[in-house]
Amino acid sequence: MLECIVTKFGGSSLSTDEQFRKVRSILELEPTRRYLVPSAPGKRFAKDEKVTDLLYMCHSLAKKKKSFEAEFAKIRERYLDIARGLHLKVDIEEKLREVEEGIASGKGRDWCASRGEYLCGLLMADYLGWRFLDAAEGIVFKEDGTLDDDKTQEKLSSLLADGESTVVPGFYGARESGEVQTFSRGGSDITGALVARAVNADVYENWTDVSGFLMADPRIIDSPAEISSITYKELRELSHMGASVLHEDAMFPVRRAGIPTNIRNTNKPYHPGTMISKNAPNEISVPTITGIAGHRGYSVINVEKSMMNSEVGFGRKVLQVFEDAGIPFEHMPTGIDSLCVVVSSELLNPRLDEVVARIEKLVGTNGTVTVSDRMAIIATVGRGMVHNCGTAARLFSAMSRARINVRMIDQGSSELSIIVGVNDNDFEATIHAIYHEFVE
Amino acid sequence: MLECIVTKFGGSSLSTDEQFRKVRSILELEPTRRYLVPSAPGKRFAKDEKVTDLLYMCHSLAKKKKSFEAEFAKIRERYLDIARGLHLKVDIEEKLREVEEGIASGKGRDWCASRGEYLCGLLMADYLGWRFLDAAEGIVFKEDGTLDDDKTQEKLSSLLADGESTVVPGFYGARESGEVQTFSRGGSDITGALVARAVNADVYENWTDVSGFLMADPRIIDSPAEISSITYKELRELSHMGASVLHEDAMFPVRRAGIPTNIRNTNKPYHPGTMISKNAPNEISVPTITGIAGHRGYSVINVEKSMMNSEVGFGRKVLQVFEDAGIPFEHMPTGIDSLCVVVSSELLNPRLDEVVARIEKLVGTNGTVTVSDRMAIIATVGRGMVHNCGTAARLFSAMSRARINVRMIDQGSSELSIIVGVNDNDFEATIHAIYHEFVE
Repeated sequence: MLECIVTKFGGSSLSTDEQFRKVRSILELEPTRRYLVPSAPGKRFAKDEKVTDLLYMCHSLAKKKKSFEAEFAKIRERYLDIARGLHLKVDIEEKLREVEEGIASGKGRDWCASRGEYLCGLLMADYLGWRFLDAAEGIVFKEDGTLDDDKTQEKLSSLLADGESTVVPGFYGARESGEVQTFSRGGSDITGALVARAVNADVYENWTDVSGFLMADPRIIDSPAEISSITYKELRELSHMGASVLHEDAMFPVRRAGIPTNIRNTNKPYHPGTMISKNAPNEISVPTITGIAGHRGYSVINVEKSMMNSEVGFGRKVLQVFEDAGIPFEHMPTGIDSLCVVVSSELLNPRLDEVVARIEKLVGTNGTVTVSDRMAIIATVGRGMVHNCGTAARLFSAMSRARINVRMIDQGSSELSIIVGVNDNDFEATIHAIYHEFVE
Repeated sequence: MLECIVTKFGGSSLSTDEQFRKVRSILELEPTRRYLVPSAPGKRFAKDEKVTDLLYMCHSLAKKKKSFEAEFAKIRERYLDIARGLHLKVDIEEKLREVEEGIASGKGRDWCASRGEYLCGLLMADYLGWRFLDAAEGIVFKEDGTLDDDKTQEKLSSLLADGESTVVPGFYGARESGEVQTFSRGGSDITGALVARAVNADVYENWTDVSGFLMADPRIIDSPAEISSITYKELRELSHMGASVLHEDAMFPVRRAGIPTNIRNTNKPYHPGTMISKNAPNEISVPTITGIAGHRGYSVINVEKSMMNSEVGFGRKVLQVFEDAGIPFEHMPTGIDSLCVVVSSELLNPRLDEVVARIEKLVGTNGTVTVSDRMAIIATVGRGMVHNCGTAARLFSAMSRARINVRMIDQGSSELSIIVGVNDNDFEATIHAIYHEFVE
């Protein structure tokens, strides 16, 4: 039996009173769901506006001394609609007036934006009959604008130590000076993770409008399968390669604390979603691969030099060139007298001439430096790939059947992924080939 | 029609008067074979002694003021046998006396060893009716003992400019002071390459007792196929990975000059052997792969660190540790938050603790450093591997059928090879699997 679950609900899960009802029934299904971190109300339909966007607009207009009445009226209507629909007792009109005055009086951009979550939290606490904890009291930022991780953990855990069911609005906190500050967009996920760590939750549930992460990009693969379980490490590999998943900062606190994250769908509360944990479960039915993700837009700097291999330090010197130019390298496959460095074309291009000139100097007259671009990199992530002797064979056979040339292969530093480089225009075909080989 | 061929004959091709006859008939087959670089007479049968070894023994005994009469008698017999068998006119007995006196009078080790080629060259020049050029006149060493490449080219090309058919004994040259110096063992191959470059030969023929290089180690694969054509680059990849081929120094002069090397078998003069050239011929019947070679005894230092990927310069710092310890790295596969460095266990082990401690310091508390050893690396070398989309698929399918786990894959820096890492005890099985997939 789980002892304590922290839930975070995204904007679409809180867009209407009807969505609020779904949230309450989800909480009632499992009484150990004792903490809730709300976003601000999101879109109700495709062309709807998000409350947070409206708040940014109000702030922007107020700053230019223009009227923001029309925009604020939309915000007011959203909250009043919900409050009325749920017959709430909280004086939300009074709170809305305070926000409106704050914006008019020139409160900061972060303060204005944060009111979406603040007001939403007030409504939710009233609806659930739970305590409301203003995030400005528990989430601490340093004066340089970065999160004060230690102080946040100390404050939040002490404020929530009594175990009382509590709503903590997402997205913001405050500096010690009292000034409200927000995380980057989507920062409610971070608040949820910090709360989960503070109460040492058994699970951090992140409720959204999808039933978990998908094994591949739905713009490429039609209705890809959902990932049922994945480790934080695997997710980071997929995320780095372009899969749209949780922000890294939203996983870090719970990952380090060993708390699993469960991505759930508010509209399909019985769907188990995606469970992200430190270690993979020992399921027999685990699919061979967990997900596929990739990126276009890489360049390859190929360096050939006679007798390179006998020269200790050559590879290091090449990497130094990229480091000096501030360009991180993705991969560095090596041959005997050759190595190549794979980097983002976007980062390389502004410094291309300088980087090539410096490497040419290192190479001297006994070698060549060539640059090719338009490479895509695709990571196939899965558990124990290294222990499964057939994985590489299946992957390359599938690519071969699709007549795709492999420009680069990198596997070995982790047991999690096989990374292949292909021409940009083979990008989608590669993902199709791999997906259909391993998934369906 | 070829204009000029330089031939080099190994010790087994010159071990008896019968072998000398084969050499002459090979030269007669193709009149453009106008230069010959001989080794010293090698073994006539498995337990026989090589003349060079006997010369080293004589020198060593003489140095200890011991009698080397018995050993020198064996040397004398070898040369006299050949001279008698071929009815040569040259006064080889006189030359042998000079060598014997030189050894007795305390001549240097290199001078003593070089007399094997010197005497052999004298016999051969006499037998062929060709000019004899003492290598001490054409091959120039610097006072620090390294080859003076520029001076050698200048001297040799001027000495051989008249186009007269000439024998140049292999293995040695002289410093400008006149002192004779030898290359490392097998250095006659280098002499041949230097002569080929000096006369701008069309082909450098290296005559041995095998019909070219083998596609795999015959100790692992029973009667492997011969490589019919290979590029210098491919050969260097195979050679680096443990295939026993020409010494790097013996390819460098001809490779740079664009002169192909042809490995031939003195005992099968009609076999085309292995042709090594700068660019591969556009044959249709080229096999997919050129050769397979590998090494046991690698260690993998696996470095994991949270958010490594966002830290520009981390990979460079890790390589710096190896550079400072004087350990060349073979491969560095990278994941998102992990990289691993593959190095020779033999080079790593004496510095293991120091290297690991330094990397642990780089990693800090947010990561781990683990070392695993007993990895074997196998390079499958071939032309246009990258342009052949099925190669990787076939390779990994073959390994999969043999139930071999792939610990590492590296491909991309050259189009020449796919490199796989497997457990040491899968080394031979991997070579078998790949060989039988691609060759027979």
